Amino acid sequence: MVKPSDIPLPTQPLQSLPDNAHLECPEELLKHIEEDAGTLLDLANQSIVSARQFDRERVMQLCRLAAKYETTAVPVQRPLTGKILISAFYEPSTRTRLSFESAWHRLGGDIMSITDPGTTGIAKGESYRDVAEMLSSYGDVIVLRDTDQNAIFEMMKALRVPIINAGNGIDEHPTQALADIFAILKWRPDLLELDITEDRKIRIGIIGVPGRMRTVRSLLLLLSLFGYAIKEVVIICNTREVFAKGQREELEQRGLTVRVTTEMDAELPNLDVVYINAIVWSGNSYEEHGTEYCLTKDSPLREDAIVLHPLARGSELSTDLDETPHNWYFAQARGAVYIRMALLTCYVWLF
Amino acid sequence: MVKPSDIPLPTQPLQSLPDNAHLECPEELLKHIEEDAGTLLDLANQSIVSARQFDRERVMQLCRLAAKYETTAVPVQRPLTGKILISAFYEPSTRTRLSFESAWHRLGGDIMSITDPGTTGIAKGESYRDVAEMLSSYGDVIVLRDTDQNAIFEMMKALRVPIINAGNGIDEHPTQALADIFAILKWRPDLLELDITEDRKIRIGIIGVPGRMRTVRSLLLLLSLFGYAIKEVVIICNTREVFAKGQREELEQRGLTVRVTTEMDAELPNLDVVYINAIVWSGNSYEEHGTEYCLTKDSPLREDAIVLHPLARGSELSTDLDETPHNWYFAQARGAVYIRMALLTCYVWLF
Amino acid sequence: MVKPSDIPLPTQPLQSLPDNAHLECPEELLKHIEEDAGTLLDLANQSIVSARQFDRERVMQLCRLAAKYETTAVPVQRPLTGKILISAFYEPSTRTRLSFESAWHRLGGDIMSITDPGTTGIAKGESYRDVAEMLSSYGDVIVLRDTDQNAIFEMMKALRVPIINAGNGIDEHPTQALADIFAILKWRPDLLELDITEDRKIRIGIIGVPGRMRTVRSLLLLLSLFGYAIKEVVIICNTREVFAKGQREELEQRGLTVRVTTEMDAELPNLDVVYINAIVWSGNSYEEHGTEYCLTKDSPLREDAIVLHPLARGSELSTDLDETPHNWYFAQARGAVYIRMALLTCYVWLF
Repeated sequence: MVKPSDIPLPTQPLQSLPDNAHLECPEELLKHIEEDAGTLLDLANQSIVSARQFDRERVMQLCRLAAKYETTAVPVQRPLTGKILISAFYEPSTRTRLSFESAWHRLGGDIMSITDPGTTGIAKGESYRDVAEMLSSYGDVIVLRDTDQNAIFEMMKALRVPIINAGNGIDEHPTQALADIFAILKWRPDLLELDITEDRKIRIGIIGVPGRMRTVRSLLLLLSLFGYAIKEVVIICNTREVFAKGQREELEQRGLTVRVTTEMDAELPNLDVVYINAIVWSGNSYEEHGTEYCLTKDSPLREDAIVLHPLARGSELSTDLDETPHNWYFAQARGAVYIRMALLTCYVWLF
Repeated sequence: MVKPSDIPLPTQPLQSLPDNAHLECPEELLKHIEEDAGTLLDLANQSIVSARQFDRERVMQLCRLAAKYETTAVPVQRPLTGKILISAFYEPSTRTRLSFESAWHRLGGDIMSITDPGTTGIAKGESYRDVAEMLSSYGDVIVLRDTDQNAIFEMMKALRVPIINAGNGIDEHPTQALADIFAILKWRPDLLELDITEDRKIRIGIIGVPGRMRTVRSLLLLLSLFGYAIKEVVIICNTREVFAKGQREELEQRGLTVRVTTEMDAELPNLDVVYINAIVWSGNSYEEHGTEYCLTKDSPLREDAIVLHPLARGSELSTDLDETPHNWYFAQARGAVYIRMALLTCYVWLF
Repeated sequence: MVKPSDIPLPTQPLQSLPDNAHLECPEELLKHIEEDAGTLLDLANQSIVSARQFDRERVMQLCRLAAKYETTAVPVQRPLTGKILISAFYEPSTRTRLSFESAWHRLGGDIMSITDPGTTGIAKGESYRDVAEMLSSYGDVIVLRDTDQNAIFEMMKALRVPIINAGNGIDEHPTQALADIFAILKWRPDLLELDITEDRKIRIGIIGVPGRMRTVRSLLLLLSLFGYAIKEVVIICNTREVFAKGQREELEQRGLTVRVTTEMDAELPNLDVVYINAIVWSGNSYEEHGTEYCLTKDSPLREDAIVLHPLARGSELSTDLDETPHNWYFAQARGAVYIRMALLTCYVWLF
């Protein structure tokens, strides 16, 4: 007879973190930024619509706080206990929604989610103002994603609580851009030095369409705050209309040097940061741009170049890069929770 | 070179409350009702199916507690910590669902939501009794909305935890009616005086179909508890069948004077409260009633008349009323969270 | 005039538990198992994919902890405070999802749910590995149900947090099997005695298809840990292919005596436990098996036989059995929360 103890017992132990987690980096970033929480204080009474609402000091302090969260195993305090986030994703999204909800939960707050656009009042013809009036009564902070870029502006006419833009059509996605900057500053905290020497300035390549991609639009606005440390931004793009009206002029006025090219492989050997994205969500469908651009481990990347991607990815970013040191896109995604925790922490002062 | 500090920084400060919030009113209502929590004690072991389950004393005490919540910035206690609400919306709804969930969260409880009827056991042919057996095991209180008016009664045959009717077909919506009464009593706390003088009694107009609209059906039942303060209820309606079988008789037995007319504009100058609704959800589609009735700021409303609407609205309620003193529908919607908090608080005694 | 106090006030008092709740049983089970929490300690760093990962000692200790939870009215501690469960149901399910979420909430944790497969990255072609990388960053424990039996294995290649299999295609459903065993051991704690006498050994009938039903597959693996107390397992099944390749051999090697028959009524008088199931979810549709088998109160069941069913049921299990002492399927469903609480408690040691 088989004794119970003779039966084999397979196990499924957890993996440890891979090398590309870059967990030492937030520690390093912390050393480069002096705490000045007052800077964040006036974010407490603001809705976040555009990357234009962040100056260099605010970005620095948010990254500082995010780095602090990333290096703290377990947050002991739950400052948002009793506060309700309404997570309204009228354009479906798992990644951004979970990242915001995770951040809010880790700060102790409760969440109500709207994930099925078809069942909502808006789908039945309710006005944005009426919805905003409702959300103001039932929640403390709103996170909104909508295919209609005007939705957030319409809602703000009636809202009495802060709203955060989690992607409005092809317009902006400011918190994604904060996550991008957080990744870049963890990789190179010395970019914060206003007197950075010429040889340490970086060249950033963006494979994407600034005029159509909300992630790229917001990122460029934040990058312009660090123009003193950036040799140039090279837009790699083969569409006819690269920029929206006035977009390039605004970036140059803000101090960013921008160049446009269609040749990716010619640029890669000179780039320190390569940001790539291919999908534009527009209404209920998507456009794919730049399908002829594809980064792989055989691309002529500089040895020390990092690759960023807002994810989810398509064929433009080969998985064979995952195990290389170029892979900073997973660290970028992981940091998205901490930077959103930092931003949401500001609202603690509101209550 | 552009210095980072030269870049302009637009802000998006929050709006303060508009004048029509009526935030002073709950304070006033509090003064009119003496606390008697014992009245609410026996709601703790009850399911809430019908507005018939509330007498005048219970409605008063619930409104008292709601007013207390509305005037308390932050509830310090979280009496429902560890308790689970199952929010089962087999008929989709954002407004009522969020209002219940917000109330439960503000009392400290956790929530599990069912928002996609198509994926549930019921859609696959599971019986209401089996679902009720399951919900009893996994939650502490159930909130149910269903297009089928019998669902809640079928479930109650097997449920061992309280269930609250959040709209059952064309039958009832008792907590909406509580929110309506809460708004009316905040506006005129003197309606609570049993010896109210004739000149202060009110005339209420209801533009809607009592026999087909669950909100109207429940509201009329609650209004009948205050028959001593109501001159008459005028039903403004142009359908052939205004009442369900026995409905008018029941209301009159409960002490309500009811009159029916098709002429809205002739009545408006004599009405103190105008309640309007046009939509009847029936099964998975809706009927629109009274599309020829439309309230605007040019309607011949009395100067001091208030307008109520369960929302979401259609064309029957013009947005040009929003900025007028007639607008009490936003205050009514806002109060819905507090009256639901009051009702849910009763279950604290159950645990 | 009608006085408000004259209006009748119907009530809807709650029901007490029916007799088939078997609430005295977990107390009895507790007495039969000596506490040895160390056994559960090494589950803390494991994902749960298969029933093969549980030996008899682990099953006993989990059942012990579950019985403790079932007999404790209100858990005072909230050990998972601040921890996030991602409840990812790419194959829709209400019952299993709510049961897991209820368990996690009762331990104090927060939850993010994915319930609408159509809106997720996976539906848009995102790889399981990328999804796993994301989930690792945003949650602390993952519960996954997927129609694709390989999804969990693909995800585990990239996951850094534990994942629990809540049903992977036609492969396994290990926590359902734990709930089944928990019910059986509450009914007969003496089955834990390794020197059980022949006359007290039991005969178990399974009406279902071991090779196609994940619930049956996992249950058989757990039953084999108690082979010393089981005379035989009788599979009642009329499909051509009863077992998957190697399945019967594995069970026999693990010490289970298995016999297959097509005749239900001939077997019933000799069975102590009758487990019945008819539905196999396969991809996005389902197959029905054994529709000619139907248990009713007129079936020739032994007087003291118990009936188990993973629910939701179809016509194979008549509701006329609900009020009989054979009904242990409701106790089994109720116990599912407690056994999942026990399993999830193990992760407390991880944090």
